[in-house]
Amino acid sequence: MAREEKTVYLDYNATTPYASSVQKSMMMAFNQWGNPSSSYKKGKVAKYVVEKSRESVANMIGAKASEIIFMSGGTEANNTAITTVIREWKHVERKPHVISTKIEHDATLKVIESLLEANEIRVTFLTTNSDGSVDPELIGRSVEDDTVLITLMLANNESGSLLDVKRLCSVLEKKNHERIGKGLARIHLHIDAAQALGKIPVSVVETPVDYLTIVGHKFYGPRIGALYVKDGLPVRPLVRGGGQEKQRRPGTENTICIAGLGEAAKLVTENIAEYHAHLRRMKDHLKEALLREFPRGTCVINFPETQEQTQLPNTLSVSFPGLSGNRILANCPHLEASTGAACHSTTNSNSASAMLLSLLSEEQAIGTIRLSVGRETTTEELNLAVEYLKEAVNKIKSSSVI
Amino acid sequence: MAREEKTVYLDYNATTPYASSVQKSMMMAFNQWGNPSSSYKKGKVAKYVVEKSRESVANMIGAKASEIIFMSGGTEANNTAITTVIREWKHVERKPHVISTKIEHDATLKVIESLLEANEIRVTFLTTNSDGSVDPELIGRSVEDDTVLITLMLANNESGSLLDVKRLCSVLEKKNHERIGKGLARIHLHIDAAQALGKIPVSVVETPVDYLTIVGHKFYGPRIGALYVKDGLPVRPLVRGGGQEKQRRPGTENTICIAGLGEAAKLVTENIAEYHAHLRRMKDHLKEALLREFPRGTCVINFPETQEQTQLPNTLSVSFPGLSGNRILANCPHLEASTGAACHSTTNSNSASAMLLSLLSEEQAIGTIRLSVGRETTTEELNLAVEYLKEAVNKIKSSSVI
Repeated sequence: MAREEKTVYLDYNATTPYASSVQKSMMMAFNQWGNPSSSYKKGKVAKYVVEKSRESVANMIGAKASEIIFMSGGTEANNTAITTVIREWKHVERKPHVISTKIEHDATLKVIESLLEANEIRVTFLTTNSDGSVDPELIGRSVEDDTVLITLMLANNESGSLLDVKRLCSVLEKKNHERIGKGLARIHLHIDAAQALGKIPVSVVETPVDYLTIVGHKFYGPRIGALYVKDGLPVRPLVRGGGQEKQRRPGTENTICIAGLGEAAKLVTENIAEYHAHLRRMKDHLKEALLREFPRGTCVINFPETQEQTQLPNTLSVSFPGLSGNRILANCPHLEASTGAACHSTTNSNSASAMLLSLLSEEQAIGTIRLSVGRETTTEELNLAVEYLKEAVNKIKSSSVI
Repeated sequence: MAREEKTVYLDYNATTPYASSVQKSMMMAFNQWGNPSSSYKKGKVAKYVVEKSRESVANMIGAKASEIIFMSGGTEANNTAITTVIREWKHVERKPHVISTKIEHDATLKVIESLLEANEIRVTFLTTNSDGSVDPELIGRSVEDDTVLITLMLANNESGSLLDVKRLCSVLEKKNHERIGKGLARIHLHIDAAQALGKIPVSVVETPVDYLTIVGHKFYGPRIGALYVKDGLPVRPLVRGGGQEKQRRPGTENTICIAGLGEAAKLVTENIAEYHAHLRRMKDHLKEALLREFPRGTCVINFPETQEQTQLPNTLSVSFPGLSGNRILANCPHLEASTGAACHSTTNSNSASAMLLSLLSEEQAIGTIRLSVGRETTTEELNLAVEYLKEAVNKIKSSSVI
């Protein structure tokens, strides 16, 4: 083959590279290695790095620095938010009621399932729209007297569909206002923003959520996370130990990764409009190229955007009906993409994620590939990706004929 | 002052710098940023980094790679080991019984306290020797029918005293053998080796413990940790989520820090004898210089070593009776040391850690400074540190006279 076989990465929803300034800030932090709890200079320098980063993470979402708690990752952040609310409001006479969906990330779903198994909660799993999004009015109608928590992801990692969190917040505000008079517990809103941050603007001022999960490696930062906790709300750490993070998360601070998270957040704050526009351009280019290059009906856009059903600007879920997404990717050694979330990846060529199976026909789900573009994605890369896909599909089709 | 005011760091028990090869391996991992769960090449490369590091960490303590689970830090490792054993063996008719001491690290003590508060366990806090160490025979005598867990630190972070884990293991082996016949639950041994690794040899072959806590930043590695879990023993993750770490610890792997931990472990495996010898030489030099330079009785070694009471080779706890350790350090701007563990540091000049107060007279405890040497410590630095201390003590004494 004359063409250079350049590898094209289109799995930015699985993880992202470290932005070069993030790398720099982390390397700088090699020299700021003191224990932030130590009272001498080396300790104070490290403490300063941690606090500067906290401000930067807070800025990204319009929060106060005091509302940011560093965590080992999104999993810990989701677990902490959910169990905190349940444990804190378990004194309601009946079991606390939780509202969520069955297509949340495992870091949410598995916590809910374990609380269900332990008979500690009741749960309403909402019916989702055809793209996996949920209707804020439906959420409002699902509220019960014992409801204490709504936990939802802001952007679905597989379909790319967005939650209308603005409408949800206003529905909830009304509900919570009514509940005061009735003496009912406040309903808390936890939003997993893992897949949304760095792709769309997220602001706790415009959408006043109670808890929000932040995950560095989805926006060109390191593999740690943070939890936004609205001022005045409780946090019950999952682990016990030292007094770090104002008693809200014990353990010597991972200064290097925290420094990187701060820099990654700063990049988002400064460039989100540009990132958003670039991602959108690339996604549109990819969509058009696929629809142009594949015969009608052989490559389908799984979740078409409408005015009501908005999507992440970078995520394109497509299906090759009658074929297996896993098999297509196995025949694209130079295209790095996936059929679904990496955290529960499978290479079984005839399976699809539970999320896809719940939204699409089995044939469409099995034929699905998730293509997610990134900050560095170019139209050349996308054209190459489409070529790789065409070659793979043709190869599979011709081998099936034989 | 003619002399150059060089800062001397003697708080290597609080944290250590990143070894240069650790930094290199972490920087290399910037390029190995794929999600280890992804099935394409970038994912496989990251997975390889993680598994190579796991082998290296296992090698450091003579374990199998399958026995190492990466964790966010020592706090999570201690919490996981302790709660796993309690939850797993709570079906014994009466409450599970735990044996520990009151001078464990907060990452152990606070878990025990919370389980006590929740009325889930009974605890025997052992009386310690005068240096904070515990007698294996006493531990053996404290075992009850319902005992399921003994959790102790291998090296005390403040006094430097070492647990005779070899004798403890043989005491326990006998006990557990007897218990089989009686139909009693096995007693599990969790050892927090945070402060010991990189300073003394630690081997799960020579001392067959069940769970062992590993903390990177105490041996020139990054701020993550690992838990050794003997093959066949259970692990109940504190957080729920994806299937990473063979279902034993969810969350996308922090490849960079894991790479660094592997390299830090490799350094320990290859150089432990040399590290040990150097630390010992430096500690002896420091001890002799202090005893020589301070008038008899004005600088006291808190926990003198004997053949029975062995110590970390790098930790020297000294006291300046009648003075305050915090005040002395406040007058040594170029000596970075502490009066106790950083995780519960205080700058109150007239307080001392609970651990010191439990072992020493109040006067001696308040006058205590913990000096801990490291791999790069030189005799020149130590001589300078002694000078700084002398100047500070003289300054305080002369100002007191006025």
